[in-house]
Amino acid sequence: MKNKMITSRDIDFAKWYTDIVKQAHLAAYSNVKGCVILEPNGYAIWENIQTILDQKFKDLGHQNVYMPVFIPESALAKEAEHVEGFAPEVAWVTHGGNNKLEERLCVRPTSETLFCDHYAKIVKSYRDLPKLYNQWCNIVRWEKETRPFLRSREFLWQEGHTIHETAEEAEKETHTMLNVYRDLYENYLAIPVVTGQKTDSEKFAGAEYTLTCEALMYNGVSLQSCTSHYFGQKFAIPFDIKFTNRRNELEYVYQTSWGLSTRSIGGIIMVHADDNGLVLPPKVAPTQIVIVPIGQDQAVLDKANEIFEILKINFRTKIDLTDKTPGFKFAEHEMNGIPFRIEIGPKDLEKNRFILARRDNYNKKEISFDTNLIDLFNNEILIMHQAMFNRAKQRMDKFTYDCVELSEVEDIMNQQPGFINAMWCGDEACEKGFKEIKGLKARCIPFDQKQLSDKCIVCGKDAKHHVIWGIQY
Amino acid sequence: MKNKMITSRDIDFAKWYTDIVKQAHLAAYSNVKGCVILEPNGYAIWENIQTILDQKFKDLGHQNVYMPVFIPESALAKEAEHVEGFAPEVAWVTHGGNNKLEERLCVRPTSETLFCDHYAKIVKSYRDLPKLYNQWCNIVRWEKETRPFLRSREFLWQEGHTIHETAEEAEKETHTMLNVYRDLYENYLAIPVVTGQKTDSEKFAGAEYTLTCEALMYNGVSLQSCTSHYFGQKFAIPFDIKFTNRRNELEYVYQTSWGLSTRSIGGIIMVHADDNGLVLPPKVAPTQIVIVPIGQDQAVLDKANEIFEILKINFRTKIDLTDKTPGFKFAEHEMNGIPFRIEIGPKDLEKNRFILARRDNYNKKEISFDTNLIDLFNNEILIMHQAMFNRAKQRMDKFTYDCVELSEVEDIMNQQPGFINAMWCGDEACEKGFKEIKGLKARCIPFDQKQLSDKCIVCGKDAKHHVIWGIQY
Repeated sequence: MKNKMITSRDIDFAKWYTDIVKQAHLAAYSNVKGCVILEPNGYAIWENIQTILDQKFKDLGHQNVYMPVFIPESALAKEAEHVEGFAPEVAWVTHGGNNKLEERLCVRPTSETLFCDHYAKIVKSYRDLPKLYNQWCNIVRWEKETRPFLRSREFLWQEGHTIHETAEEAEKETHTMLNVYRDLYENYLAIPVVTGQKTDSEKFAGAEYTLTCEALMYNGVSLQSCTSHYFGQKFAIPFDIKFTNRRNELEYVYQTSWGLSTRSIGGIIMVHADDNGLVLPPKVAPTQIVIVPIGQDQAVLDKANEIFEILKINFRTKIDLTDKTPGFKFAEHEMNGIPFRIEIGPKDLEKNRFILARRDNYNKKEISFDTNLIDLFNNEILIMHQAMFNRAKQRMDKFTYDCVELSEVEDIMNQQPGFINAMWCGDEACEKGFKEIKGLKARCIPFDQKQLSDKCIVCGKDAKHHVIWGIQY
Repeated sequence: MKNKMITSRDIDFAKWYTDIVKQAHLAAYSNVKGCVILEPNGYAIWENIQTILDQKFKDLGHQNVYMPVFIPESALAKEAEHVEGFAPEVAWVTHGGNNKLEERLCVRPTSETLFCDHYAKIVKSYRDLPKLYNQWCNIVRWEKETRPFLRSREFLWQEGHTIHETAEEAEKETHTMLNVYRDLYENYLAIPVVTGQKTDSEKFAGAEYTLTCEALMYNGVSLQSCTSHYFGQKFAIPFDIKFTNRRNELEYVYQTSWGLSTRSIGGIIMVHADDNGLVLPPKVAPTQIVIVPIGQDQAVLDKANEIFEILKINFRTKIDLTDKTPGFKFAEHEMNGIPFRIEIGPKDLEKNRFILARRDNYNKKEISFDTNLIDLFNNEILIMHQAMFNRAKQRMDKFTYDCVELSEVEDIMNQQPGFINAMWCGDEACEKGFKEIKGLKARCIPFDQKQLSDKCIVCGKDAKHHVIWGIQY
């Protein structure tokens, strides 16, 4: 039975997406063009993601800081590729109160330049290294077309910025942090990802190279889910971040940055939600269990409250005591994606059990009141998480295609898009050639390289890499 | 023995303050004029304050959201007093990328207008009320003179914005949230405050009234430490936030807002720090205990590590294994304000004990290794907190003066400023008269009213209120 408040995802995916965002109260449009409001249901998911990542960062020795929201135009311009990449899409502050500023300031589109300025002042010796800083903040990029969570003029993220004594250590950090993100996606958000390196034309403006996690959405479009950049000394030189090394020589530091944003919530929606609403991965769901007593029988209410008191200590639990009908309540909690629903009515009480309904597969089962509820839900959370991951993984595998001819790629894209595995010579002209097929872009050169053929799929010359191609958000 | 890296607070308080900020690595100056960088030591205090407040907000039913960082000029202008109060000190965004905006946007100086816009859209009936929203975010106010934590062009804060069915409920919320702040200051930051209502000339631009916590700094200057505003329907009318009430009539909502910022860290410094550096209240100290093994004796290191493993589960604990001298380490940990230091050397090992040094009063005592360390520190934290609070309270009481003649006020301000208790007729002209004495301003009309005399101290007419006056940051 389909919820009538949302469009079917197989009929109009884009409309379905915005229906979910609106009906599950994740975000609302604001009076500021291109900026959304994160409503309580949406922001609470972000808080849970923050808590998980922040602990992982700290366990790895990172420290949180906060840099100014403004960047002077001259600072943005210090690294040539960086300014070229970002200047066209920043918001400019020109006046403070009634006075025109001497130099205009942009609202940060990313904070490499500010971290570099600061590091140049505080680092003197190898003893001061590494510096492993992170910040949680808002970011502004003046996008033309916007969509809640996926692309908006302001979004929330974290950005890690680290500097190191050696290239080796910085490269290791770049990979370590990508793995932290992969762990988040796979083991908390139940979203399988492929990991690899961006091609030069797709890397971050100013990086030596960029690593990425790419996920496949329900409709076959891919989502760049996070990035981790290795800068080498490309920022250290223009910003003059030097230190005295162990051989007592002056040397430039080696640098990384890495970020993950509220876009991840868009990924959760597009991988897991269905035609009845949101489906939240149980480990990050703001409410994990909702208890719905059926009817006004006092014994039922007492039992529901008793269960609530037990569960709320270990799980994010709510009890729904509103005067809405059970059917309305069920639909509402399904829309909001709450992983588990407990139903208790007078009949259940007679039979010494409640009904446990799972959001992702609509399974219902009877659970005896004698069950240890803590053990039960600890287990159910793991089972549901794994089922959601497996379902997404099967879909990703199903819509990942190995191609050796461009005609095959075209056929696939006309039917059901997805990830295209194909060989590439490394030439930018061939990369552009791919774009002519429905805008396919190189998602990444996966770490897990396959030898599909020895020829570039576009030009037929010797292949250098196996690349995963896809349409992007 | 005074730390030579900082000016004495009795010689030059302003210089002492900036020395502490810099030497304890709380904040650093950035290349963006008037904006500071919150360094790891400073940001970590803010994280602890956030954790405490956020839990209290949620326990009271509040939900976190996130509103855009920009406010269209027309939205800011909807409430007349509000725009008059804030427009002169906002940063204006005029361009997005290379294009001039049709309407300029200000970077939020506070978010009443955005919350109002949103509430007007989502509230229809009394069943939708109350809405108890809060957001953690950055704020920009284009201040001319800035000082780290106390006044800077960008700062971090939380702003609660709630709407209610009745004036009574909203006024109760205004007071409840002020008490949450008072609880934070007194029971976590060890800072005594006086609470009361701002005079009309000092209230928030657009409020019916403003409540405040005012604290007295070491130098006798007062700090407005947070505010809680009751708006009545002053914003609801221009923003048209209406609901159908229980009598089935359309009515405007009743509204509050309340905020506490990183300024609180400035308060911690100016109340507790001394000539050897920062002194952190133990409940919010990022590191509560530091263990310093003396020498390289393996048995000492083993014992230090053993204690570290026990303590770190329950307390934010560090062990200092750097190759610096013990004297240097002690000075550094004192500068950073770490509440407790454990010293263990070979002699201590022989005697089956360690030395426990307390930061606030420099007391040292011997603690047997047989002591239950968890109980010990749970207790020591409470004792130290109370001692710090009592010390600050005694100082506040000592420098709070009851005056009935303006000449008394002048004498006091020429010697040791503080809080001045004096009667006031309620006339704005008399309030301005006070300003001529060293810029004294009404801090608040305290809830705890005294009857010092029946005459206004300025004009001699009938007194309406007992007011606390002070110099402000």
